[in-house]
Amino acid sequence: MAEEVKLFGTWASPFSRRIEVALKLKGVQFEYIEENLSNKSPALLEYNPVHKKIPVLVHNGKPVAESLVILEYIDETWKHNPILPTDPYEKAIARFWAKYIDDKLWPAATKVLVSKGEEQKGVTEEIQEQLKTLESELKGKKFFGGESLGFVDIAANIIVFLLVAQEALGLMEILTEEQFPVLHEWYQRLVDDAVFKECVPPRERHLGFFKVRFGSSTASK
Amino acid sequence: MAEEVKLFGTWASPFSRRIEVALKLKGVQFEYIEENLSNKSPALLEYNPVHKKIPVLVHNGKPVAESLVILEYIDETWKHNPILPTDPYEKAIARFWAKYIDDKLWPAATKVLVSKGEEQKGVTEEIQEQLKTLESELKGKKFFGGESLGFVDIAANIIVFLLVAQEALGLMEILTEEQFPVLHEWYQRLVDDAVFKECVPPRERHLGFFKVRFGSSTASK
Repeated sequence: MAEEVKLFGTWASPFSRRIEVALKLKGVQFEYIEENLSNKSPALLEYNPVHKKIPVLVHNGKPVAESLVILEYIDETWKHNPILPTDPYEKAIARFWAKYIDDKLWPAATKVLVSKGEEQKGVTEEIQEQLKTLESELKGKKFFGGESLGFVDIAANIIVFLLVAQEALGLMEILTEEQFPVLHEWYQRLVDDAVFKECVPPRERHLGFFKVRFGSSTASK
Repeated sequence: MAEEVKLFGTWASPFSRRIEVALKLKGVQFEYIEENLSNKSPALLEYNPVHKKIPVLVHNGKPVAESLVILEYIDETWKHNPILPTDPYEKAIARFWAKYIDDKLWPAATKVLVSKGEEQKGVTEEIQEQLKTLESELKGKKFFGGESLGFVDIAANIIVFLLVAQEALGLMEILTEEQFPVLHEWYQRLVDDAVFKECVPPRERHLGFFKVRFGSSTASK
C-alpha cells in the first residue's frame, strides 16, 4: 500500500519542526500543511478535536497528536535510523529529559517572552537553572543520546528557538556562550546537521516573528 | 543475577500507586520505601536530583523517575502481561490519553482542592469538560485499552483519587454517577480488580487525609 503521510504544522512552532526532523531523518516522504492558528482548518479540528493544536501527523488517514507521542510513533513505525535507544533504561532516560524540556523549559521560555522587569528577571533565573541542568547532562557527549542526533536533541530544539528569541528581543543574558559552552557547541552541531538545519525557520523571518509578536511586551524592560 | 527492585513512594500519591499496580500486574517482587515528603530521604534526593520527587523506581541500582516513564520502563523490561498495546498506533493513542490525564486533569484536580467560591466553580466546570472527554473515549469499552486493564487505566487512577477527595470535602457535584455513568462503571471495575484494589489507599485513612490536608481551604465555600 502506498503510504500517505501528512503533517499539519506552523513554520515557527518548534513542536512542528520536531516532527519534520524525525520524518526527514527517517527519509519518510510527507505532505506538509501549514496551518493558520488564528483560523484553523476544519481538517485540523477534525484530526485533533481534543486539543485543536498542531502538530498532527496523519498516517494513512489516522491522526496522532502531541509532538513527543508523534516522535515515538514515527520511531516505532519506521524502524530504520532509530531516534530512541533500544535499551529500556536508556530509553527511559531519553523520555525523562524530553519530558523535562516540555514540562519545565518550555513553560519558562514562553513566560520570559511576555514578562517584564522583576518577573522577567525571576523567569530568566529559572531558565538558567534548567539550562545548567541540561548543560551538565550533555557534558562530555556530542548529543544528548551520545554519538548521533536523537530524541532528546529533537525535543531540545526549544533551545534553538530560545536563542533566536533572545537575539530578536535583546534578552542577551539568558543563554550566553560563556555560561553555557557545552550547550552552545551542541547548538552548533545541530544547525550544522544536514537534516536539522533544513528544519530551522529562515533566520531573518524568525527574528522578525519574535520582534512583531513579543517585541512590545519586552520593549520597556 | 538476582533482581533488586525498589520503589520510593508515598501512600496517598496516585503516581506512586500507578507504579505499584504495574509491578504487581507483572508479578515483579519489589521493596517499597515510604517517603516522608516533608523530610525526604538522602536516597530519594540522590536518585531523583532533578525533581526530588516520588515515585522513583530503582532497578538493580539504576533509578527511573516520572510515573509514565517508569510505567513504560516496566513494560519494556518485564514483557509478560503487557500494559501497553504492541501496535504503534494503539500505543500512540494510549500515550496521548495518559498525557492528557497528567497535563489537563491532574492540574485541575489539584486546583479544585485549594480553591473557593467562583474560582472553584470555574475549575469544577473545567474538570467536568475533561471528564466528558474521557467518558466519551471510554464509552463502549470495558477499559480504556479495551478488554483488560492497561496503561491509560493505570494513569486514570487520578479519577479514583478525585472521587475520594470529592467525598471527603463535600464537592459532590464534580463526578456524579448521573452525569458520568461510563466512568462510574469503569471505576467499579477498577476497584473490583484483584491487583488494582490492593493498591488503593485504605478508604477511611484516605478520606481523613483529604479532610486534614484540604478541609479548611474548601470549608467556607
